[in-house]
Parts: sequence; structure tokens; C-alpha cells
Amino acid sequence: MLDPAFFTLGVGALALAVVALLVRSILRQDTGTERMREVAGYISVGTSAYLKRQVRTIGLIVPWLAIALFFAFGWKTSVAFLCGVSLSLVAGYIGMSITTRANVRTASASMESTGKAMRIAFLGGAAMGLTVTALSLLGIFALKVTLDDLQALVGFGFGGSLAAMFAQIGGGIYTKSADVGADLVGKVERHMPEDDPRNAAVIADLVGDNVGDCAGRGSDLFQSFSDDMVTGMILGSAFTWKYGPNAIMFPLVMQATGILASITGIALAREWKGLSHSKSLLLGLLTTAFLSAVGLYFISMSFLNDVAMFLAGASGIAATLVAIFVAMYYTGPGSRPVREIVKMSKGGAAMNIISGFSYGLQGSILPVLALMAAVVLSYIVSGYSLYAIVMANIGTDLMIGFIMSADTFGPIVDNAEGIARVSGVERDARKALESLDAVGNTMKASTKAYAMASGTITAFVIFATYFQAARIESFPLTDPLALALLFVGAALPFLFSSLTIGATATGAFKMVREVRRQFRETPGLKEGKATPDYARCVDIATRVALREMILPGLLAFGAPVVVGLAFGPEELGTLVIGAVSSAALLGFFFNNVGAAFDNAKKFVEATAWVEEDKARYRATVVGDTVGDPLKDVAGPSLLILMKLLGMTALLVLPLVMRA
Amino acid sequence: MLDPAFFTLGVGALALAVVALLVRSILRQDTGTERMREVAGYISVGTSAYLKRQVRTIGLIVPWLAIALFFAFGWKTSVAFLCGVSLSLVAGYIGMSITTRANVRTASASMESTGKAMRIAFLGGAAMGLTVTALSLLGIFALKVTLDDLQALVGFGFGGSLAAMFAQIGGGIYTKSADVGADLVGKVERHMPEDDPRNAAVIADLVGDNVGDCAGRGSDLFQSFSDDMVTGMILGSAFTWKYGPNAIMFPLVMQATGILASITGIALAREWKGLSHSKSLLLGLLTTAFLSAVGLYFISMSFLNDVAMFLAGASGIAATLVAIFVAMYYTGPGSRPVREIVKMSKGGAAMNIISGFSYGLQGSILPVLALMAAVVLSYIVSGYSLYAIVMANIGTDLMIGFIMSADTFGPIVDNAEGIARVSGVERDARKALESLDAVGNTMKASTKAYAMASGTITAFVIFATYFQAARIESFPLTDPLALALLFVGAALPFLFSSLTIGATATGAFKMVREVRRQFRETPGLKEGKATPDYARCVDIATRVALREMILPGLLAFGAPVVVGLAFGPEELGTLVIGAVSSAALLGFFFNNVGAAFDNAKKFVEATAWVEEDKARYRATVVGDTVGDPLKDVAGPSLLILMKLLGMTALLVLPLVMRA
Repeated sequence: MLDPAFFTLGVGALALAVVALLVRSILRQDTGTERMREVAGYISVGTSAYLKRQVRTIGLIVPWLAIALFFAFGWKTSVAFLCGVSLSLVAGYIGMSITTRANVRTASASMESTGKAMRIAFLGGAAMGLTVTALSLLGIFALKVTLDDLQALVGFGFGGSLAAMFAQIGGGIYTKSADVGADLVGKVERHMPEDDPRNAAVIADLVGDNVGDCAGRGSDLFQSFSDDMVTGMILGSAFTWKYGPNAIMFPLVMQATGILASITGIALAREWKGLSHSKSLLLGLLTTAFLSAVGLYFISMSFLNDVAMFLAGASGIAATLVAIFVAMYYTGPGSRPVREIVKMSKGGAAMNIISGFSYGLQGSILPVLALMAAVVLSYIVSGYSLYAIVMANIGTDLMIGFIMSADTFGPIVDNAEGIARVSGVERDARKALESLDAVGNTMKASTKAYAMASGTITAFVIFATYFQAARIESFPLTDPLALALLFVGAALPFLFSSLTIGATATGAFKMVREVRRQFRETPGLKEGKATPDYARCVDIATRVALREMILPGLLAFGAPVVVGLAFGPEELGTLVIGAVSSAALLGFFFNNVGAAFDNAKKFVEATAWVEEDKARYRATVVGDTVGDPLKDVAGPSLLILMKLLGMTALLVLPLVMRA
Repeated sequence: MLDPAFFTLGVGALALAVVALLVRSILRQDTGTERMREVAGYISVGTSAYLKRQVRTIGLIVPWLAIALFFAFGWKTSVAFLCGVSLSLVAGYIGMSITTRANVRTASASMESTGKAMRIAFLGGAAMGLTVTALSLLGIFALKVTLDDLQALVGFGFGGSLAAMFAQIGGGIYTKSADVGADLVGKVERHMPEDDPRNAAVIADLVGDNVGDCAGRGSDLFQSFSDDMVTGMILGSAFTWKYGPNAIMFPLVMQATGILASITGIALAREWKGLSHSKSLLLGLLTTAFLSAVGLYFISMSFLNDVAMFLAGASGIAATLVAIFVAMYYTGPGSRPVREIVKMSKGGAAMNIISGFSYGLQGSILPVLALMAAVVLSYIVSGYSLYAIVMANIGTDLMIGFIMSADTFGPIVDNAEGIARVSGVERDARKALESLDAVGNTMKASTKAYAMASGTITAFVIFATYFQAARIESFPLTDPLALALLFVGAALPFLFSSLTIGATATGAFKMVREVRRQFRETPGLKEGKATPDYARCVDIATRVALREMILPGLLAFGAPVVVGLAFGPEELGTLVIGAVSSAALLGFFFNNVGAAFDNAKKFVEATAWVEEDKARYRATVVGDTVGDPLKDVAGPSLLILMKLLGMTALLVLPLVMRA
């Protein structure tokens, strides 16, 4: 039988080796024309400038927290916390360095063949995806071995969640301030095409793809991947009587298996004859899912010798597939709801938004039902073992390596398209990138559904871990105080979303003013004879994002600390339960409604209505713009809120119980 | 000391006598010109036609339920159920007959003086408000005396909730299909003013004010008023050891006290020199609140001899005032958030909606916090007595008589304005009505906040009653099944809102098509030389509303029955808790965001931007249209969902426990 430690280490090392190979093969590609390299340079400079300032901002908070953790829980938790924060940031940074190189190479390859462009973009994503998963796996393994203290590992999860919180909120506000601002002046006011080089916000928009969509999602999946291992190991420690020490190591073995399956899926995700590009990616996804399930069967039998645990894990895989397919149904290009929204848009922007809302609200039902079914079935099938819920939860993670690749594929193509447009590449190559961009959009929507599904089940494991640690067997919901805190918890995601959406509106409004100002004050800009001041827009987005990420961030980890210390462990528990349930539903809603608006607009853009029924086209553009902050700022941030609340509750629980 | 039965009966009779006086004084007023009477006739015919068909539709379901209740719980519950349904419908019908007479008289009075118009509209509302409260009070009193079975009274509450469910969903879909449809063709496409007689949907829109805003809200407050007494008496029966039989009768005495306070407030709500119209109404509201508190003090001391119960009731009054003032802050004309939305609208419709969303999401936080504080403080101040939560809850009802008057005032003025416009009354009189309309809008927004606040606390009493009846002392939230059902519960309001919003979109879309068709096919209509076919639009709205109210209605009472019988009392409890928490937050959000959009549009309409910054004005019109189904269909329906779920759970609990 394989040694779990050996297997984990081996897979982690293998994944890093694959990353090195991928990077080498990407860097070998052609970087296109001088102008393309120049534009890519702008993006790269803007991206790393933002990331550096983001790290500095986070750096203002982290040392104080590390000190607080040291005094509250000792050096081990504090060290684990610092490792969690740093590894998350490092993973984001490495990923970013790769994607800002893959973008221009994808643009250049698109002049040659669509298949090649697709492959480069996907491999760029894969490098990011594997970096994130490998660093998380190796980091937790190393800490487990050196610290030998499972409770201290919560610090690692908390650190990862905290970094993700700032990266996702900051990145989200950045990208959507720039995107919405650029669209409002460009598309809506001046009827210019997307990524017109005269638009001063265009570079900020492209930088945003990297810092929001890539780095944000990367840090998010890093925390998912990490939190699930940490909580799984803690809960697993209560099952050593049944499975021996493997009960603790098994979460790592599962994740390692998922990485192996993902590497295989990545190898398959290329242009296949007779398959559309999105079907090709789907093939990779389903292969990854299938191999994950097969691998899971073998490791469940050999490490735990319990088929129920395999079934539980498989139900997690199945539930995420349901979430992905439901998202595709509600938001996919040409799906019935999207066509219905397009039809309603004949009545104007308001009808577009009302009908989109109706479908978006619906879209959150089925995934939640599927997830609940997975949890309940795992629990029942295993004879009421909480360990089965850990299995279901890590089951949802097994495809992360592949999902992250497919997700990062989107912004790389988006960037490539932007580079091609700004530098005036011939139309054919741009057409190729446009078709890939549509594929990327669908993958992005699916990834969000996936991440939300995974996060929701994670919450159940966090609850279970929490109950176990707090020795709570049942909840005094008959106590009005506990019940009231459940309602207060449910209110938190509303406040939190209000802050992130409001910040995006503020940022976009500033961006609109700046772009308008440049058009007014820069002579020759309208005619394309002058270059706009891109840096100024990059700076505006950076400032807004960094300033506005603080308050929601503090709220997310301050609320559980305050409630826990003021009231007690039961009350903290109900607060978190209320918050997670409302965050999950709002999150699915925001993600779906935004993606549906996006694809309704794309649907109209592919028809003659763009010219012949301008009112309808404009209605879908309004919907798309409304959906942007919902799907790219509020939705993803809620996911992180959900997990950060849980990890914070777990972290402070010992203090709360002492109080 | 007063006898509680005597006091209750006396106040109920007094309220009906006041209604008779009000009706007589309203009917004595002038009904204006021939043309005005003609238009009012259309509205009246359309309204009663709709109400009759609505009763018939509800009549298809009610007998079956009555039979089911008979077999499940015996004849008493079945009779109480039938009384609840009928009294709710009768109250709605009487109210409707009054408002469809007050509207034309208000229009006529506006030609004389604004103060007189205001008074007639308000008294029309008062007649409705007092009818609703008196019938509820007397109905429950009569059943209590004749049936002598508290558990059977749940049937009454369930009946009232069921009738309210259909009346609010049906009425809401009706009114907003017509309103949105009329606006989209009228204002947005043809730039015609509101209520232009050439617009075929204009009469349907005016009928909608009656069947949605009046009848819908009336049935809603009928159920609040009733449910709170029923649950209060049941929970009170556990406190006879402390307060004697008064513990059971006290809820009725409280409501009677509220009716007395409201009658005084109504007498004060007239034009006062030196006070704006909205301040005059506010004066009436605050007087009612103050008198309610004073009355509450006296009855608490004389019937219960417990000052803690007074404090608990007063905290309920205070929490509703907070909800009202927060709603005024977030949605009031000229408030900071509304001005901010207007500013953002410079960036177009999307920015209008994004910023409105941000504020709307925020607006749900403070009321929920205030309500939770009221619940928790009542509980603590009374030395952890659940009876105190009954007090807090009925405390929120004491102003219902007044609130309902102020709320119905809105649609009466709205109707009067429509009648004046359609029949071409001179501009001065219309100006008077316009200013009253703005007052009515603010009152409507406040009432919704009030009703939601009251409903949220009611939920706590329902929970407490449920726990007591189910003998549940703590909740097995550590059981993944119960926890999963909490999430499923939280998903219900999303599905439910999706259905109601989607139905409105469908209805509005049909209306748009019909109005366009008439403009195209009726010769001379555009020039105002032909009369449109109003009846056809009335018919479309009626059909859509009646067809689309069935599914959400069934969902609302089917879900708890199925879950309860399939899983058990604890699981049913968590389902309802999850649903109520998410319904409360979504409800506040929908109500606030819609009202803020409405007033942002009104703010711009009062400026020169209507002509000079048309893009901005149109942006606010889009926001207003998006907000319509949210604030007038989804929000109010969620409130009823919340209570119907609770009452159904209470009702089926004995079956669930047997199963």
C-alpha cells in the first residue's frame, strides 16, 4: 500500500514540475509585433503595480493579526497564519506572472490558428491552477509535519481566507470599476467598439482581468482547497478509532488524487476535431470528473476500506456537476432563459432586467437542492457519519486544478483580445479570439457555480467541525437570542454586498468622469491621433479598490469575533449559519443573473439586431452592465465571506469558550 | 376594572360605527363632472369584475382545504378556516367599495382645495383600515367564545393568510403588469404623460391600484392583525398560571387599544396650518404611536399588573418606528441615498440600478437589527418570558388602523389623479393631486417597512408557539438533515420571488404588445380622436394575475406540509426558520430598492433635467420600472409567504407529530 505522506509529497512535486514545463513551453511562443508587446507591457506594469500595493495594504493588517494570534493561541497558530497569507499571495503572484505573459502569446498565436491560441491560453491557466493547488497541498503537508498541531492549522486556513478576501474584493472592485466605466463611456455614450485604444480606461480594464478574474479567483480556490483539508483533518481526527491515522491524512490524499486527475484533464483540453471549443473543454472537465471518481474509489478502498466514503465523495462530485450544468442552463449562450431575456428586451432595458432577475432568482434553487441532497445522502449512506460530509466536501474540490485552468483561460483570452484590438491586429485573428472569448465566458460562469457549490458544502463541514470543537450537540433555537442572531447573520451578506456593489459604482463613476475628461481635454484623442493617459485610469481603479476593500474585509472577520466574545459559542454558531445560508443563495443569484445578462447581450450581438433593433441591443447592454458588479464583485466576494466567517469562528472558538 | 370581553366587543362595535359615519360623509361629497363619473365607472366595473373572479378562483381551492381540515382536525378548525377566508375577502370587498367611491370624490374635491381632497382620500383609507381591523377583532372574539378551542383558531389565521396570499400575489401581478406595461409604451416609447387617455392600459393601471395596493395590503394587514392575536392567545394560554385568564384575552385587549389610538390618530390626520401634508400625516402617526404606548401602559398594569409587558410592547412600537424612519431615510424624496442615485444616473440606467441596489441592500440591515433588539430586549427585560415576545409583536400591530388608512390614502389619490387626467380636469386641480400623490408614495413605502417589521416579529412568536406546541426545546442543528432543510427553506423565497417577478414580466410584456397593437390598428387613436379598448387590457391583466397566482400560492402552503410529513417537526421548524430569515431580508431589500428608484425618478421629474438632461431622466425611468415589480409584487408577497409558512406549519403540526 502507498504511504499517504509519500503520495502527497510526490503529487505536489509532480504538479510543480508540470508547472515548470508549462511555463517553459509558454515562454517559447512568439510574442507578436512590437505594438503588441508594448500593450502587453502596459498591462503587465499595471498588474504588478496593483499587486504590490495590494500586498502592502494587506501587510498593514497582517502583522497585528499575527501578534494577536500569537498571544491568543501561541506561536504555532501565528506561524500557520503567516504561511497561509504568504502562500496565497505567492500563488497569486506566480500565477499572475504567467498569465501576463500568456496573454500576448495567445494574441500572437491567434494569427496562426485558433487551436494554438486556445492551447496557449489554457496552458497559461493550467500553470496558475496547478501552482495554486500544489502550494496549498505542500504548505499544509509541511505544517502538519513540522507543527504537529491540527488546531493550529486553522490559522493557515484563516490566513488563506483573509488573503482571498482582500484579493477578491480589491480585485473585483478594480476590474469592474474599470470595465463598467470603460463600457459606459465607450459603448453606451460614444458607440465605440470594445477595447478601443482611444478609451483611456481600456488598459485598466485589461489589468482588471488579471487582478480580479485571475488573482481573485486563484486566491479564492486556494482557500477552498486549503480550508477543506484543514477542516477535514480536524474532523478526521475524531475518526482515527475507525480508520487509524489515515483518517487524518486522507483529505490530503484526496486532494492529491484530484490534482492527478486534473493534470490528465488538462492534457486533454485541446482542440479536438469534430468538437466545438467549448465541447473540447467540457470533455476535459468530464474526464477529470470521471478520473477523480475512479481515483477516489481506489484510495477509499485502500486507505479507508469503506465504500460509503467513496459514495459520499462521489456525491460531492455529482453535486458540483449539477451546479455547473444548472449554471450553463440558466446562463449559457442560446439557452432558453437567455433567449427569453432577449425576447423581453424588446420591451426595453427595464424588461430585460426584470426578466433576468426572475431567472437569476430561480437559478439558485436547484444547485442548493442538489448540494443539500449530497450532504444528506452522504450522511445517511455512511450510517450517519460526519466524516462522510468531509468526503462530500473534498469531493467538490477534486476538479479544482482543471476548473482553475478553464477559468483562468477566460481572462487570458480576454486580455489577448484586448491586446489584439488595441494594437490593431487584423480582423481574422480577432475573430478567432472572439469565439474563444465566448467559450471563456461560459467557463467563467460554470466556475463560479462550481466554487459556490464547493463553498456551500464546505460550510457544512465547518459547522460540523465547529459543533464538535464547541461540544454543542443541539442548538437552543428556542432561545430568542440565538434565533435573533441567525437573522442578524442572514443580514450580514446584504450589508457586505451593499458595500462591494456600492464601491464598484463609486469607482465606475470616477472612471466615467476621467474618460470623459480626457476626451474633452486631450486634443486629437477622439480622432485617434493622440494616446490617452492610460496610467491615470489604472491609478484611479487601484486607489478605489484598495480603499474600499478595507471595510468589508474588517466586517467579515470582525463580526464573528465580536458576536462570539459578546454572546457565546451557540450564538456565534447561529450567526454563522444564518450568514452562510443567505450568502449561498445571494451568491448563486448574483452569479447567475450577471452571466445571463452577459450572454443575452452576446446573443443579440451575434444577430442583425445590433443595427436593426438598436433599442433592444441597448437594453441588453444595460443589463450586462448591471450584471457586472453582481457577478464579478458581489457574488465571488460572498463566497469568500461565507468561508472567512466560518474559519474565523473556528479560530476564535477556543477564546469564546474560555470567555 | 374593565371586563376584557366587554372592552373588545365595545371597541369593535365602535370601529364599525365610525366606518358607517365615514362612509356617509364620503358619499355625501360631490362626484364631479359627467366624464369623471364615467371614468370612475370604468375603474369600479374593472375592480369588482376582478375581485369576483379572484373570489371564484380562490373558491376552487378553499372547499377542498376545508374538507381536508375537517378530516384532519375536526369541524372547529374547518369552520374557523372558512371564517378566516371569508372575513378577509369581505373586508377587502367592503374596503374596495369605499375606495372606488372615494377616488372620484377626491378628484372632484381637488378642484376646490387640496386640504379637502386630502381629507376625503384619507377618510376613505380610514374606512378601509377600520373595517379590516374591526372584522378581524370581532371575528376572532366570536370564534373564541363559540368554539372555545384555541388550537382551532389557527384555522382562522391560516384562512386569513391563504386569502391574503392570493389577494396579494394576484393583485400585485395585476397592478404591476398594467402599470409597467402602460409606462413602457406610454412614457418610454411614446413620451406620453402618465395616465394619458389614449393609452389602452390606463384603466387597467387604475384598477390595479385598487386590487393590488388597496385590497392586497388590506388582506395582508388583516392576516397580520389576526395571526398575531391567534398566536398570542395560544402562547398566552401557557401563562395563565401567572396572569389568570387575562393572559389569553390580553392580545384582543391590546388590539382594541390600538384601534382606539388609531381612531384618534385618524381624527388628527388633516391639513394643519404650517405643516406640510406629509408632516400632517406624520403627526397623526406619531400621535397614534404615543397613544398606543400610553394605552398599553394602562392595560398592562390593570390586566396583567406587569410593567415588563408594557416595556416589551413599547419596544415593538419603537422597532416599527425605526423601520419606518429607516425606510424614509433610504427612500424618501430628497434623502441622501435618493440624491446619490440621481447623481449616479448621470452615468446612465445601469449606474442608476447598480447604486440603487447598493442602497437597497443596506436598507434592510438597520430594521432587522432594530427588530432583533426589540425581541431580545423584551425577552431579557421580562426575565426570559416568551409572553413578552407576544407583547413586542402585538406592539407592532397597534398602529395598523392608522397605517392602513395612510396606506390606502395613496392609491385613492393615485386613482383620483388618474381620473382627473383621463377626464381632462384643469391643471391646477391636478397639481394638488400630484403633491398629494408624492405624500402617498412616501406613506406606501413606510407602510411596507412597517408591515415587514411587524411580520418579522410575528415570525418569532410563531416560532415560539410552534416550539411550545411541538415540545421542542432545542434544535438538532448538528444534524446535517435539519441544517440542510434550513438552507432549502432559505431558498424558498428566492423561488417564490422568481415566480412572482416572472409573472409580472409576462403580464407586462403582453400588455405592451396589446397597447402597441391598439395604437397601430385603431385609426385616430394616436391623435386622441378614438377611444382605446380599455376592457381588453383589463382582461389581459386579470387573466395573467389569476393564472399566475396559483403556483406560488400552492408552493407556499404545500412546502411546509410536504416537508413536515416527510421529515418531522424539527425539520419543518428549520425549514420555516430558514425561509423566514431569507424572506425578511429579501423583502426589506425589494421594498426599499423599489421605493428609492421611484423617488429618484420623482426627484428628477421635479427638476429641469426632464428636458435638459433627458438621458439622466430616462435612466431614472428605467430604474423606477425595474423597481415596480420588486416593491409592489415580490416584496409584499414575501411578507405573506413568511406568515403563511408559519401558520401552515402551526396548523399541520399535530399531523406531523402523529406521523
